[in-house]
Amino acid sequence: MAKPLEGLKVIDLTTALSGPFCTMMLADYGADVIKIEAPAGDQSRHWAPVHKASGESEYFAVFNRNKRDVCINLKDPEGVALFYDLVKEADILVENYRGGVTKKLSIDYESVKAVNPSIIYASLTGFGQTGPYAQHPCYDIVAQAMSGLMMLSGYPGQEPIKACPSIIDQVSGIYMMNGILLALHHRERTGEGQFVDVAMLDSAFSLMENYPSLVSMGHDAPERSGNRDASISPFDAFPCKDGYVVISAGTEKLWKAFCQTAGLEELLDDPRYADNQSRTDHYLSSLKEQITNWCMQRTKTEIETLLEDAGVPSSAVLTISESVRHPQILARDMVQKTEHPLIGEFETTGCVVKLSETPGEIKTPAPLLGQDNREILGLSEEEEQRLIEKGVLGKR
Amino acid sequence: MAKPLEGLKVIDLTTALSGPFCTMMLADYGADVIKIEAPAGDQSRHWAPVHKASGESEYFAVFNRNKRDVCINLKDPEGVALFYDLVKEADILVENYRGGVTKKLSIDYESVKAVNPSIIYASLTGFGQTGPYAQHPCYDIVAQAMSGLMMLSGYPGQEPIKACPSIIDQVSGIYMMNGILLALHHRERTGEGQFVDVAMLDSAFSLMENYPSLVSMGHDAPERSGNRDASISPFDAFPCKDGYVVISAGTEKLWKAFCQTAGLEELLDDPRYADNQSRTDHYLSSLKEQITNWCMQRTKTEIETLLEDAGVPSSAVLTISESVRHPQILARDMVQKTEHPLIGEFETTGCVVKLSETPGEIKTPAPLLGQDNREILGLSEEEEQRLIEKGVLGKR
Repeated sequence: MAKPLEGLKVIDLTTALSGPFCTMMLADYGADVIKIEAPAGDQSRHWAPVHKASGESEYFAVFNRNKRDVCINLKDPEGVALFYDLVKEADILVENYRGGVTKKLSIDYESVKAVNPSIIYASLTGFGQTGPYAQHPCYDIVAQAMSGLMMLSGYPGQEPIKACPSIIDQVSGIYMMNGILLALHHRERTGEGQFVDVAMLDSAFSLMENYPSLVSMGHDAPERSGNRDASISPFDAFPCKDGYVVISAGTEKLWKAFCQTAGLEELLDDPRYADNQSRTDHYLSSLKEQITNWCMQRTKTEIETLLEDAGVPSSAVLTISESVRHPQILARDMVQKTEHPLIGEFETTGCVVKLSETPGEIKTPAPLLGQDNREILGLSEEEEQRLIEKGVLGKR
Repeated sequence: MAKPLEGLKVIDLTTALSGPFCTMMLADYGADVIKIEAPAGDQSRHWAPVHKASGESEYFAVFNRNKRDVCINLKDPEGVALFYDLVKEADILVENYRGGVTKKLSIDYESVKAVNPSIIYASLTGFGQTGPYAQHPCYDIVAQAMSGLMMLSGYPGQEPIKACPSIIDQVSGIYMMNGILLALHHRERTGEGQFVDVAMLDSAFSLMENYPSLVSMGHDAPERSGNRDASISPFDAFPCKDGYVVISAGTEKLWKAFCQTAGLEELLDDPRYADNQSRTDHYLSSLKEQITNWCMQRTKTEIETLLEDAGVPSSAVLTISESVRHPQILARDMVQKTEHPLIGEFETTGCVVKLSETPGEIKTPAPLLGQDNREILGLSEEEEQRLIEKGVLGKR
């Protein structure tokens, strides 16, 4: 089937996670993503786990599928010239250097635009291109801490908890894909390129639901409350015989269904639990304990099966080993087998966005460093060798 | 300035959070989003907090800016006919009904496509349109539990912790915007519409970084480890005099900078902390305590200022009241004042994706129920009144 981004050329200068996750999605949907790596390689080529026999990073292999690869030393003027040859034919450039670095390398938007005025130049950074923190380094945990996300997760009186793994890196990559596609739509209409600026901190902050509005609306700022919902009960995680389950019986209908299925009909006659407000008022003082006691006598599977039949939204709290085998995850093609020339076969995450006519696809494995130098730069074997010896190009 | 989606008409059948967050972004970037509500209104019109004087939901007001509003009873055949009049002129339809409901209402993709073959029909659900859970109800907490996200967050031996607030609702909305823009790009080239299917569970699962690959690569599945990074040290949250800070000194250079700035030079000579592997091996047994002791003698601000000057990525763990006043958040226009006709002035979250030529903008407040009935449906005051009395339309 056709892919929606076929025919578009993307220069990918990103490393690690946020940028490579974005360009991986562009490649999944058909863009020709040319990853340009320094001779030392994307920093995540050195991240654990590393495949023992080959020394290839298994981390890198996960986020760079469907891309081609050229290894250019951008600190060498001849390398910069090769880069600009590629820029001339590109539709999109994506980079996630720390603020200020592209200017030092003479590959910033102004310089690139002078060569290719209609290019879409996308910069993904921790704090964005503007503001007092524009040049500061950032990690996922910093964005989670500064946005308010971390302080809102976990139990009151205990340590705030960051969401794991590095979800904000990935969310900022998804936002950047939106930014690139918006700019592309504008370019197709007008021929005009532009600069796209996405920050991890902004991305994290945007996930704070309506909380940023509350104080200005005259309410108290919310505080962390563990896994329970502050205004709906029961809606929480509970320990059970062999793990944890979540149960969300957020309406009168679901509350009744839950009590009847659970054999807890006596709760339906208890005036403390007569409506949602009353259940929420008495949740921590009594209702939580009653549901916990019920759960502790049963296994995850027993509870899930019972509540599923009753239509009450619930789930066992799954480990990642369990989620990769969950029938719904498998039915959605969210776990796919892929084959890497050195690492061999492994399972990897599929495409989230399901398009009926132009679906995404995992076609080629993550590239070896510089594997497409000759094809992309149009070089003979001898020319490539000469440039490698000169330190202009690199190759595994 | 021009907006990238100007001229595009979006039929918005979504309620609550995931769908409205997606269509809000479409509207921020210039699409004409026509929200169609049932006479009872979007369920989130009844969510707390509610503005006392007017009874309007302050929650709804946050996620529905820049949209127009028509209130149609889709259970009435005359209402369905009015809906199809709008469908004929629409480019995009977005819905987040539970699986199966659009078919019952005769507004499913097949029916809509018969009237408008080139429409992009976007369905955002908990589990997607396929697989054994396609018809199941879902909440954010269920997607967090089933994907593995929740089991990975929090401390070992303690309860798994969900990220708060409902971040997966929002992430699935961001993915759906990608899906719609991909489909739009294909349509502009070929004239062909299509069906876009995004699930909250898939969205949550996709954020699990490289974890879904680990077992198939021969490694142990990761387990939750609190706020620390499992392979980089020090990289964690620490309690201090007046709250918590995160410190991520992930390289040798940053480790040295941290020790020198903190006045902890003796750690640089300690063989237990000679390199990252060694620091990670001795992190829980000794290093964590030494850094915690240092932090406990200082305030958040003292620590932040010191480490900022030294270039060590760090942050106080901010409450939401603090993050909305953070100079970087403010400099990025991530908190903007807006005015609602009944609720009055309040602060709300700005646009994440910064486009140099076609930026997003907050232009109009969330609509009142049915406020644009006449304009959108082309009705006189009398006709509107007649249809309201017949139960075909509704209005606040």
